[in-house]
Amino acid sequence: MAVKRVGVLGSGQLGRMMALAGIPLDVEFVFFDEGENTPSHCVGKVINPKTPGALQTFIKMVDVVTYESENTDAGLVEGIGKHVPVFPGPDSLRKSQHRLTEKDTFRSLGIATAEYRRVSTREELEKATQELGFPIVLKTTTMGYDGKGQAVLRSAADIDSAWQSLGHAELIAEAFVTFSRELSVIAARDQHGHTVVYPLAENQHHAGILRVSRVPAPDCSTEKQAQAEQFITTLLDHLNHIGVLTLELFDTASGLVANEMAPRVHNSGHWSIEGAETSQFENHVRAICGFPLGSTQNRHSHAAMINIIGKNGDRNSVLNEPAAHLHMYGKSERSNRKLGHINIVADSAAEMESVISKFNAFVNECG
Amino acid sequence: MAVKRVGVLGSGQLGRMMALAGIPLDVEFVFFDEGENTPSHCVGKVINPKTPGALQTFIKMVDVVTYESENTDAGLVEGIGKHVPVFPGPDSLRKSQHRLTEKDTFRSLGIATAEYRRVSTREELEKATQELGFPIVLKTTTMGYDGKGQAVLRSAADIDSAWQSLGHAELIAEAFVTFSRELSVIAARDQHGHTVVYPLAENQHHAGILRVSRVPAPDCSTEKQAQAEQFITTLLDHLNHIGVLTLELFDTASGLVANEMAPRVHNSGHWSIEGAETSQFENHVRAICGFPLGSTQNRHSHAAMINIIGKNGDRNSVLNEPAAHLHMYGKSERSNRKLGHINIVADSAAEMESVISKFNAFVNECG
Repeated sequence: MAVKRVGVLGSGQLGRMMALAGIPLDVEFVFFDEGENTPSHCVGKVINPKTPGALQTFIKMVDVVTYESENTDAGLVEGIGKHVPVFPGPDSLRKSQHRLTEKDTFRSLGIATAEYRRVSTREELEKATQELGFPIVLKTTTMGYDGKGQAVLRSAADIDSAWQSLGHAELIAEAFVTFSRELSVIAARDQHGHTVVYPLAENQHHAGILRVSRVPAPDCSTEKQAQAEQFITTLLDHLNHIGVLTLELFDTASGLVANEMAPRVHNSGHWSIEGAETSQFENHVRAICGFPLGSTQNRHSHAAMINIIGKNGDRNSVLNEPAAHLHMYGKSERSNRKLGHINIVADSAAEMESVISKFNAFVNECG
Repeated sequence: MAVKRVGVLGSGQLGRMMALAGIPLDVEFVFFDEGENTPSHCVGKVINPKTPGALQTFIKMVDVVTYESENTDAGLVEGIGKHVPVFPGPDSLRKSQHRLTEKDTFRSLGIATAEYRRVSTREELEKATQELGFPIVLKTTTMGYDGKGQAVLRSAADIDSAWQSLGHAELIAEAFVTFSRELSVIAARDQHGHTVVYPLAENQHHAGILRVSRVPAPDCSTEKQAQAEQFITTLLDHLNHIGVLTLELFDTASGLVANEMAPRVHNSGHWSIEGAETSQFENHVRAICGFPLGSTQNRHSHAAMINIIGKNGDRNSVLNEPAAHLHMYGKSERSNRKLGHINIVADSAAEMESVISKFNAFVNECG
């Protein structure tokens, strides 16, 4: 059994946690990123793309390449793919990068979405507001994240300012979806097309940033889990996706509605490090390395994840709690920055909520 | 919360697993070792002691120093200790390195041992055989491990050859202990003198090498666990030990008898990565960094560890078993070499034995 070498485009906390999960399987990691002292720098070599011959060096060092972000340069990924396998492949990446193509893909596969219209002129924007009604969300089709590149139109009076701020780019107009909560489903697909799916997570946001995930999502019927599994399996097969994929969903009166996908491990899956038999990070590494996938079942009946945002908070309060596990990313404090997370495992919902309540200072921290 | 930097003397699998446990707590690692491509090289910087100024560089980079082996140069440890804290301290190290001092320490603390005699002349050896009876085990007081530096004397006819092979060194003669099984107890002590103890492990050896540990040790009374806890807590306090300590024990008709101690994380504690709320590696890092200790309780009712010795074996058979977790050390195959281990968690003894039996090829592998 030779050591496998995985190349990662990026060197943030997702790469760090992939490496921590992969090293025990005799997988080593090389990161391709210009950042210094990034979260991954202590779990592998980091190659700065700006040094001469960097890309050739990187490609020669690795057996397979993956990436941390759906904003990764698709041209770079395709170029690397001519020399060494890149998983997930370019189809997963390009479709995740383009909101319109993404939604068209969902629709073509029978995955429910909000109503939407392509908008490339001001006339098309006005027509979209008439067809979809207010409020609508106007988004750039590419590069938007964390609320950037989007505007909410509540009435015709908002059309002018929205068009002025976003009209330079290709846009998508989406009808508002009335939902009771946000859920996500995460799955891994291996090189033989075999798929494993994690239980649905319920995701609690504050100021546009994920704060808490609970798994399995409370009061979730087996029908809902089955619907999520059908959605993501269909999507994985269509994309011929290899590795982990995440699908964000709205829970609505008429069933699950897909919001967006990410071709990668996801913040709402961080609970799986202690919470699942095999974490999302380990399953991603297994999939891209050609190893068999591991069980996605919860180790305990309940699990939760609390993000540490902006400020480190009281580390000892986490270390002193037997049901809690600390995962820091080696980053310095900065407003709205994800610095780490706390994983909680429990044998009942009441026990889990009791532990979560001890960390209210983290949940409410708006650093 | 600043990142802490731990220096490790050595760069083997114990350092690797310390780093994998410590990095999520924002602890980084620097290793001091001349080996290349050793197990720790992918989880921190490795400084070669043979490069100019190596020791000064190492000391400047770290906040605290620890070591992987009881065979670490005690003079080096004391020298480093003048500049940066070293845990465990020199008392723990020196007493672990000298079989006679170790046994004297056990006795002085009321910890049962085999009968033993100091042997520095052939006459003392003959006297020891008369007082202790045959068989006896003759060992060098220092540097012996894995059966080296020792001889078993079954009758007076063995005295000559034993004296010839070992008589150049200071020796200890030990009476044979009749025991039903070998156990070990592992504990961690923090910088305030607080101690946490893991459940007793039952250790199954083959050809002098640990093959399987089961935790908690089967059919173990609460009295026996309490006796082990009393032994190790007394020892930790006496040594003012900071970090993890392991005490190897014989289970005899008259109670537990101490064999030897190791001032470090131990092969018989590797089960704790998935098996315990907090692994021995994480608790060692917590202790030496001044963090509070974590719970040592089993996450599931039963846990086991199977060593992978000499040959890698069928990795996929481990990855395909939901209750099993693979931990490789990045080493190439070599006879009798510890290459990795398999951790098993289960909710009953029967379930655990059923999983262990699937890995008989690993248990019986004598690579």
